Amino acid sequence: MTKIELDKTFEANRDRYLREWSEFLAFPSVSTDPDHAADCNQCAQWLADHLAALGFAVRLIPTASHPVVLAERPGKPGAPTVLFYGHYDVQPADPLNLWLTPPFNPTLRQDRLYARGAQDNKGQVFAALKAIETLVRANQLDATLKILIEGDEETGQMPILKVLDREKAALKADIVMAADTGTVSSGAPTLTMGLRGIIHLTAVLTGPDHDLHSGVHGGRAPNPALGIARLAASLHDASGRVAVPGFYDGVQEPSQAERALANAEPLDANRYASLTGVQPLGGEQGYSPIDRTAFRPAIDLNGIHSGYGGTGSKTIIPSRAEIKISARLVPGQQPARILEAIISHLQRNVPAGLKLEITEQGIGGPAVRVDLESPAVLLARQVLSELSDQPLAFLWEGASVPILSYLPAIAGGQALLVGFGSEEDNIHAPNESYSLDQFKKGYLYTGLLLGRFESR
Amino acid sequence: MTKIELDKTFEANRDRYLREWSEFLAFPSVSTDPDHAADCNQCAQWLADHLAALGFAVRLIPTASHPVVLAERPGKPGAPTVLFYGHYDVQPADPLNLWLTPPFNPTLRQDRLYARGAQDNKGQVFAALKAIETLVRANQLDATLKILIEGDEETGQMPILKVLDREKAALKADIVMAADTGTVSSGAPTLTMGLRGIIHLTAVLTGPDHDLHSGVHGGRAPNPALGIARLAASLHDASGRVAVPGFYDGVQEPSQAERALANAEPLDANRYASLTGVQPLGGEQGYSPIDRTAFRPAIDLNGIHSGYGGTGSKTIIPSRAEIKISARLVPGQQPARILEAIISHLQRNVPAGLKLEITEQGIGGPAVRVDLESPAVLLARQVLSELSDQPLAFLWEGASVPILSYLPAIAGGQALLVGFGSEEDNIHAPNESYSLDQFKKGYLYTGLLLGRFESR
Repeated sequence: MTKIELDKTFEANRDRYLREWSEFLAFPSVSTDPDHAADCNQCAQWLADHLAALGFAVRLIPTASHPVVLAERPGKPGAPTVLFYGHYDVQPADPLNLWLTPPFNPTLRQDRLYARGAQDNKGQVFAALKAIETLVRANQLDATLKILIEGDEETGQMPILKVLDREKAALKADIVMAADTGTVSSGAPTLTMGLRGIIHLTAVLTGPDHDLHSGVHGGRAPNPALGIARLAASLHDASGRVAVPGFYDGVQEPSQAERALANAEPLDANRYASLTGVQPLGGEQGYSPIDRTAFRPAIDLNGIHSGYGGTGSKTIIPSRAEIKISARLVPGQQPARILEAIISHLQRNVPAGLKLEITEQGIGGPAVRVDLESPAVLLARQVLSELSDQPLAFLWEGASVPILSYLPAIAGGQALLVGFGSEEDNIHAPNESYSLDQFKKGYLYTGLLLGRFESR
Repeated sequence: MTKIELDKTFEANRDRYLREWSEFLAFPSVSTDPDHAADCNQCAQWLADHLAALGFAVRLIPTASHPVVLAERPGKPGAPTVLFYGHYDVQPADPLNLWLTPPFNPTLRQDRLYARGAQDNKGQVFAALKAIETLVRANQLDATLKILIEGDEETGQMPILKVLDREKAALKADIVMAADTGTVSSGAPTLTMGLRGIIHLTAVLTGPDHDLHSGVHGGRAPNPALGIARLAASLHDASGRVAVPGFYDGVQEPSQAERALANAEPLDANRYASLTGVQPLGGEQGYSPIDRTAFRPAIDLNGIHSGYGGTGSKTIIPSRAEIKISARLVPGQQPARILEAIISHLQRNVPAGLKLEITEQGIGGPAVRVDLESPAVLLARQVLSELSDQPLAFLWEGASVPILSYLPAIAGGQALLVGFGSEEDNIHAPNESYSLDQFKKGYLYTGLLLGRFESR
């Protein structure tokens, strides 16, 4: 279908799309809250019915948590297979008192639909589904289309991994699409070309078996608060480079083309400061602020706690100290090896007299890198160029979407990450919204793109 | 009076002493709790009446907090003037449920009196007062005796400093005695020869104006948690020596005699570990564990807090981090200069992009060092030798008693710090107690000592 035909269909069905999208949003499918387990189930069932009505063979696959929706519609012989990934679960809506209208009562104001999940990820998913519907009804979808929509993206757990493992054959695809990303701040059409991997751990340092008097024992008893500060400080050298031996081993540098595209619009330090309150001065020397989140791994301290934190002074040597560490990884870094390297480094640097325990650790997944020259990306670039006058933006995200670390490899396909989210959508915050304009962009992109995967 | 006469008087009056001491303990003079302000007042009034009955001229001097009791009894011409310091306020009694008998209902069990303040400091003060009573009634007290008993020792505030300043003339003395210390663990008679000074501060490091996503911003935004760890770690070098420039300037080394006496009974590392849960491995290399608290200054971290501290992981770059620092000082270190040196050091080491604020700071006082060869100390050594077969112990305490940093200088006298507290007294804890045996030792020591200050 042409852009004009898709546009015409969108406008003719706009009210219905909005109505159905609102139905989808009305399910409070808050995955982290056990009280909403039934809502998650009903939401998954609603999606399954919706896809079945479009001619998909649909399965609701149970997991240790919420069910996964897996749907398939065979295409024409010789046409590629596309796997579309999304999630139907949403973040909790609290604090409720900050919402202008109730989070599960979708409300349109000035062409933005307000609801929890309006963008992340129900809105972006539903825009794609309506494009698929349009192609199916017009008999213009040659590709075999597989749709995988899970209900545990916001839980930090991945019960879906077991499903992926069992359903490897059913998930086989040439292209793995997701619409869970956003555009650069100018709003230019954006291809996400990379995501960092993530690991995390909690380390506890213990010393005295009770808080000691810092006068009686100061300079004699080893102090876990001082010890944890030393341990945390040992993670980086004075220049900001990670000092954990082996951390940078195998790190893949981006190509010249990737680096140039990533830095096409340099980070405006003042704009950054106005959004965050800080200048972009963290991390390694010798790399641009964009390079540092796009192509460089990082270790951050997410928390450090020991001893007294109230008003005034309390002269103790605390008995215990804790740090929470996470690392963002780039291609070439194996998460399990990096986790091990950090733990070994901590163990080697335990100050005399104190004991270290790793009380919690986890691997989100390795980094994701999308190939600039893959046929799917080239096609998406073509389609996005037709939809906008703005030059395309290429984004190597610092954040992680752990499932996307695994899915393309399991499916054996090329990743293609294009989404239309923006900062003002307030995802994970009160008054989340998604504009009809963004929704339509997602619809047009998906429709044009999927329509081009023809049988040969 | 001789030791035998004092002993006889003690035994003859034992029951009355116990009764009066229990009366003194029954006042819940908890100085930090505004609800107990009236109790503090009544306790001070009771003390004043008690001293007046002994023939002292007594004043109850109001302060910004609880009143100070200042009493004086002129001695014979040519006899020295002795100032006795103590405090009538006590620590809070909670947790109440851990007391076997109510904290303000003094109870005798197996020759120990159980009550809040039984030792600290009401018990030690009252033993001295009963010795003074004995000497007065026997007309055996030649010295001019001044008694200063305050009600804010446990508050961490020093409203008494203004009183000292105004009453400088009235406080003039040759010897300043206090009975707020203890004996070494063997129970041998102990002269406390030093106390460390103390300063403290709270430093806050701010970065982003809200917690940032550590994926999106990791390696780009400066991280206050990492920054505070670096700052805290910068306080010491790798060997445990304080790395703040100027910190050790002017530190006075002990004499050979002092060092030898302090180390007469070396610290038993295993006993230390059984009491504290740690080996004595903190602080500076090259000094014995005893030297490190007796003669060396120290900086400790009393608290460090930033970011997430709950279960599992939360991938944020925290917006704020805080440390609480205290330093213990030795003779030769000026508290105000050390405080300034630490603050300057922190300011010079603020990581790029973060802001440092010192939100709270305080000076307890400088170190106290008692002269081994002062006539008062020589006399006390003589008296203590007569009271015990055990060799005397000399203790340079790591802890601080801020008022004693000022009082000897203001009075213009020599400090003399002898007390009979022991670890099993559980001061500041539930079931505080003081044995009749300890009480009697304090009585005999004070009686013998004060009786020796004759007119010449």
